[in-house]
Amino acid sequence: MTQTLEPDTGAAPVEQSASSRPATDGTDAQARADAWLADFNAALDARDVDAVTGLFGTESFWRDLVALTWNITTAEGRDGIGDLLAATLDQAAPQAFEFTEPVTETDGVIEGWVAFETEVGRGKGHLRLKADDDGQLRGWTLLTTLREFKGHEEGLGERRPQGVEHQLAPGRKSWLERKQEEEATLGREQQPYVVVIGGGQGGIALGARLRQLGVPHVVLDKHDRPGDQWRGRYKSLCLHDPVWYDHLPYLQFPANWPVFAPKDKIGDWLEMYTRVMEVPYWSKSTVRSATYDESSQTWRVVVDRDGEQIVLEPKHLVFATGMSGKPNLPDFPGMDVFSGEQQHSSQHPGPEAYEGKKVVVIGSNNSAHDICGALWEHGADVTMVQRSSTHIVKSATLMDIGLGDLYSERALAGGVTTEKADMIFASLPYRIMHEFQIPLYERMKERDKDFYDRLEAVGFQHDWGDDGSGLFMKYLRRGSGYYIDVGAADLVCDGKVKLAHGQVDHLTESSVILDDGTELPADLVVYATGYGSMNGWVADIIDQATADKVGKVWGLGSDTTKDPGPWEGEQRNMWKPTQQEALWFHGGNLHQSRHYSLYLALQLKARYEGIPTPVYRLQEVHHTS
Amino acid sequence: MTQTLEPDTGAAPVEQSASSRPATDGTDAQARADAWLADFNAALDARDVDAVTGLFGTESFWRDLVALTWNITTAEGRDGIGDLLAATLDQAAPQAFEFTEPVTETDGVIEGWVAFETEVGRGKGHLRLKADDDGQLRGWTLLTTLREFKGHEEGLGERRPQGVEHQLAPGRKSWLERKQEEEATLGREQQPYVVVIGGGQGGIALGARLRQLGVPHVVLDKHDRPGDQWRGRYKSLCLHDPVWYDHLPYLQFPANWPVFAPKDKIGDWLEMYTRVMEVPYWSKSTVRSATYDESSQTWRVVVDRDGEQIVLEPKHLVFATGMSGKPNLPDFPGMDVFSGEQQHSSQHPGPEAYEGKKVVVIGSNNSAHDICGALWEHGADVTMVQRSSTHIVKSATLMDIGLGDLYSERALAGGVTTEKADMIFASLPYRIMHEFQIPLYERMKERDKDFYDRLEAVGFQHDWGDDGSGLFMKYLRRGSGYYIDVGAADLVCDGKVKLAHGQVDHLTESSVILDDGTELPADLVVYATGYGSMNGWVADIIDQATADKVGKVWGLGSDTTKDPGPWEGEQRNMWKPTQQEALWFHGGNLHQSRHYSLYLALQLKARYEGIPTPVYRLQEVHHTS
Repeated sequence: MTQTLEPDTGAAPVEQSASSRPATDGTDAQARADAWLADFNAALDARDVDAVTGLFGTESFWRDLVALTWNITTAEGRDGIGDLLAATLDQAAPQAFEFTEPVTETDGVIEGWVAFETEVGRGKGHLRLKADDDGQLRGWTLLTTLREFKGHEEGLGERRPQGVEHQLAPGRKSWLERKQEEEATLGREQQPYVVVIGGGQGGIALGARLRQLGVPHVVLDKHDRPGDQWRGRYKSLCLHDPVWYDHLPYLQFPANWPVFAPKDKIGDWLEMYTRVMEVPYWSKSTVRSATYDESSQTWRVVVDRDGEQIVLEPKHLVFATGMSGKPNLPDFPGMDVFSGEQQHSSQHPGPEAYEGKKVVVIGSNNSAHDICGALWEHGADVTMVQRSSTHIVKSATLMDIGLGDLYSERALAGGVTTEKADMIFASLPYRIMHEFQIPLYERMKERDKDFYDRLEAVGFQHDWGDDGSGLFMKYLRRGSGYYIDVGAADLVCDGKVKLAHGQVDHLTESSVILDDGTELPADLVVYATGYGSMNGWVADIIDQATADKVGKVWGLGSDTTKDPGPWEGEQRNMWKPTQQEALWFHGGNLHQSRHYSLYLALQLKARYEGIPTPVYRLQEVHHTS
Repeated sequence: MTQTLEPDTGAAPVEQSASSRPATDGTDAQARADAWLADFNAALDARDVDAVTGLFGTESFWRDLVALTWNITTAEGRDGIGDLLAATLDQAAPQAFEFTEPVTETDGVIEGWVAFETEVGRGKGHLRLKADDDGQLRGWTLLTTLREFKGHEEGLGERRPQGVEHQLAPGRKSWLERKQEEEATLGREQQPYVVVIGGGQGGIALGARLRQLGVPHVVLDKHDRPGDQWRGRYKSLCLHDPVWYDHLPYLQFPANWPVFAPKDKIGDWLEMYTRVMEVPYWSKSTVRSATYDESSQTWRVVVDRDGEQIVLEPKHLVFATGMSGKPNLPDFPGMDVFSGEQQHSSQHPGPEAYEGKKVVVIGSNNSAHDICGALWEHGADVTMVQRSSTHIVKSATLMDIGLGDLYSERALAGGVTTEKADMIFASLPYRIMHEFQIPLYERMKERDKDFYDRLEAVGFQHDWGDDGSGLFMKYLRRGSGYYIDVGAADLVCDGKVKLAHGQVDHLTESSVILDDGTELPADLVVYATGYGSMNGWVADIIDQATADKVGKVWGLGSDTTKDPGPWEGEQRNMWKPTQQEALWFHGGNLHQSRHYSLYLALQLKARYEGIPTPVYRLQEVHHTS
C-alpha cells in the first residue's frame, strides 16, 4: 500500500501497483482504496501526470473547486485530467490525500471522503473508484475543494475569538465601540476590498463568509432591511425547498424550523442572521453605476444610500442580484391600450385587492401557479395561459425521492449532514448528473400516476425535461420550466383555475387575445414570464460592452431548451472568475448560496492576501444573454 | 438479566439477582449494569418499594426533575428513596428504563445514560452504580428528568411543522397574518395562560419553551427591546461564563461566537432569538401589581404597556426578574449629605464620565472588580473597599479546570454535548457536590499560586468558600462572594486600583469614612453591594404577605455563609411549585435558564393540558428573605 512509483520504468506504474488487482477479487474495499490512494499520492508527489491519469478510468472526472485551479471546473476523462494537472500540479502541489473515515462500497463503486493539502491551503474531497473496462480499479469521480488557507484559518471552534481581553488597559475599546467605529468609517475613511451588490440570501451568505475571513467588504441592498427581498413577495409564498437544504453558513436553522419556511419567517431569519453574523450591510442603498479603472485595478461604485451619494472604491465587485433577478417583461401589441392593471410576477402585490376580478396569468411555471392559487383563494376569476409545456412535481414526492437521501431527517439520521450532502451533490459531475436524475423522476412518475393523469385529462402540457431528467436539471440548465406543486396544480385539474393554451397575440382595452383568437377578458394581467440572464444587471449598472464581454450567466451548455451549447461543464460565470477582471457573480438557491459562497469567499480572500491565483481554463463566452 | 422478582419471598430480592455479584468480579460493566437495570425495572413494575430501595446503596440519591414528583427534589438514602417511591410510584408509573448507549466504568463507578417512560411522559436520566459497603453493586446516584408528554411531543426534527399547507383553500391565512392576529388579540380577546415577568435570558428561554409546547403566554419586560437588559450595563462587560455554557434552548450559538460574549453582542442575540423563536414579548411593559383570586384561580396582572394600562388574567405567574435582580442598597449614615454621585452597581452607567474623578467602590465581588477595572482604564482614581473576604479565580483557570470537562471544545470533541453536560451536572446531588468541587479548586490554587501570593501580599482578603469548594458552590448557595478574574485583580495587586478594608461608618459631604477612621475622598460612590432575594419583587408587585409566604429564593440551606439551614436539598423556590399556588420563579445563569426552563415549561404545560400534577414534598419555608 505504500509502494513507491518508479517514474523511470516507462510503463504506466499503476499496472504494477497494489490497486491494480481486479476490483472483484477478495481484497476488501478499504485496502483496495488505500492502495489506490497511496499510488495517487505517490504520483502527485512525483509530479508524474501520466501516472496520475493512469489511475483514472476511461470515463472519469476530476471536479475542482478552487483547490488546484483557482476556478470551478471539471476535467473530463484522462486527457482532461492530464491537462488540468499539467497546468496546475507544480504550483498547487496537491498532496497528502487521506481518507477521513472508512470507505463504503455499493454496487461495485467504492466511495471515500478525503482530506488533502495544497501549497497554500487545506482541502476536503470525495472519491469514487470502480472497475474500469479492463477490470482494474480506477478513479471514476474525484472532487477536490479548498476549505481554508494555511495561516488564515477561520476563527471557529477552538479558534473562536475570546471576546474579552484578560488584561485591562487604558483606551481599550469595547466590541460595540469597535463596531460603531467600523460602521462610521466604512466606505469613507476605510474602503471595502469587496462590494457585494444585492443583500438577499446570496449576498448575506457571502458577507458572513467574508467577515469570517477578515476581508473588508460591504453588502448593498435597496430594501429597507435585510429579508425584505422575501417579505415583499406575495403573501402565501413559502420556500419551495425544504429546511435541510436551506441552511445558511455557520448557523443552522433550529430543529423547530418549518420544512417550508413562510416568506416572512425567512425574512426575519435573514435579518437576524445579518446582525448576529455582523455582516456589514447597507440597506436603502442603490447602485447607480460602476466603472472599472484598469490602471489602478479599482472599481468606482456610485451608491445612493438613503438619499446620500457615496462613491465606493473596492478592488472587487460581486453581483449577487439574484439569478432570477432581472424580470423578463414581454412586449405584446396592445399592452399600451389595455386599461386594466399589468404586472410582472415579481411586482405582483398579492391577491387581496382582486376579489371578484378577472385575472389572466401569462405563464405556467412556479410563479404562475403560486399566484393563480392565491388569487383563487381570494375569490378572483383566474385563467392561466400556458404557452409551453411545464414540468410539475408534487412537493412531497420531490422531497422524498429527489432530495430525501441528501437533505432530510432521514439523511441526517444516516449521518448525512448538510455539509456532507453539499459535498456529495458537488461530487456528481454535471456531464453525467442527468443519469442519476432520470431514474428518480421515473419513480416520481410512477408514484403520482393519478396526478399526472388528471393533469393530462385537463389538457395541461406536461414534460419531464428534454431527456427526462426532471426538475433539478432544468434548474441547473435554464433556471425555469417547472412548478413544485404545493396545491395549485389541483386547482387547474379541478377547473378552479381555468387553463388556456397558446401564445399571446395582442391585448385589447379589456382582454388578452391568444393566437387562436381566444379572448380572455381581464381586469389584471400578470406576466409570469420569467427572468433574464444576470449579465443584464451588468448592462444596467456597468455597460453593455461589459455585459457582452462576460456573457450569459447560468446554464451548463447542455444543448437543451434554453441552455444552448457548447458544453461548459459548469454553471456559466457563477462563483468563479469571469472575462471581466475583478467582476464576479454569486447567487442561486439557498443551497448554492451556502455552499458556493465559501469558494467565492476564498477566491476573494486569496486576492486580498496576495496569494497567487493563476486561473486554469478561464471560461470562454459563447452567448451574450 | 431478565430475572423476575418474587415479591412473596420476603427477603430483599436484590440478594438473589444477577446484579448482586460483587462489583469486582470479572463480569463486564455492561452486563452488570444491565442486570441491575433489569432488577430495577422488575421492582418498579411490581410496585415493590422495598425491592427498589434494596437496589440502592447506603449512600444514595435519586434526583427527580418533574418526572415522578412534579417537583424538583432529591431523595437521599434508601429511606428517602422509599418515601419518594411510596408517594409517587402508583401514579407516575416509571418503567421501561433502558440504557441508550454503552455504560462506562471509571474508578469502580459505572455510569450509564437511560431513557424511561412514565404514565404520561417520556424521560431521560443518568445512573451511577458502585460497590456498596457490602461489596454489592448498588445504585449511587439516579437522575430522572421528564422530557416530553405522550401526545404532546414538541414539533422538532421529524415532527417540525410543514410551514406550507399543500392544499389551497379560500380564507387560508399566511404565517404573517396568523402572527399579526395573535399579536393583536393577545392580552385582549385572548388571555395568556402564563404571564412571565421579566424578559432577560430567563424569560426569553422560558418563552421559547412555552411557544414550542403550545402554552399561550406573554413575556413582559420594561426595556425598549429584548437584550437591553445587557446593553444597558457598563461597556466593558462580557459574559463571565464561556459560550459552551451559555447556549439557549433549540438554537446554539454558531462556532464563531466568542468564548466570552460582549454584552451588546449577547443583547443582539437575545433580540434576534426572541424574534425567530416567536416568543410573545411585550417590551416597554412594567407590571404595576398582581393579585391572585383564589376562587377563580386566576391572577389579575396590571401592566403599563408603553403608557397604556392593560389587565392580564393568566392562570400562572412566573417571576423571571433575575436571581440577581433586586438591588441591595445599603443605608449608611451620611448618604443624604454626600454631595457627589451615588449609584448601586446595577445603575452604574460606565466609566466615560469619570476621568480624573475620585471613585470609591464599596464591595469586592464581580461587579466591584469589573467597575473598578473599567474606571481605571478611563483614568479615574479608584479605591475598592473590601468589607469581607472574596473568592477569586482566574477566568482561564476556571474554564479549564472548573468547566472544561463539561463545557468546552475539548468536552464537545469527547462527545459531551451541551445537553449531556447539563444532565451530567444535574446528576450530581447537591448534598455531595462540594466533594466533587473541592479537588478542582485545590488544583486551581496550585496552578495560580503566584497570583494568590500577589493578592495576599497586597492585603486582599481571599477565601475559597466555607469548605474550600470554591466558586460554583458559592453561586449555588448564596449567588455572591466571588470574582471571575478577567484582569481587574491584577490592577489591585499592582496598586492601580487602591484597596481599603473595613466597614463603612458614614459618609461626609465629600468622602467615605470607614470604621477605622480612614477617609476616602470621593466624587462618586458605587455600591457594589449585591442583590436581595427574588421574593423582594413579590413584595413589590403582589404584597409582603405573599413574599413571606413563599419565602427566600435561592440557596440550598447549606448552613454556610449567607445560606442558612436547614438543608433544602435543592435551590429554594426555583423552577418548581412554591407555597403560593400558581406562582413560580425562573432564572439563574444562562446554563440554568436553558436547562431548568424545560422543567418549568413542562410543569406549566401539564397544568394547561389538565394532566394531574400531584406535588411530592412541596418545600417548606424557613426564611422570609
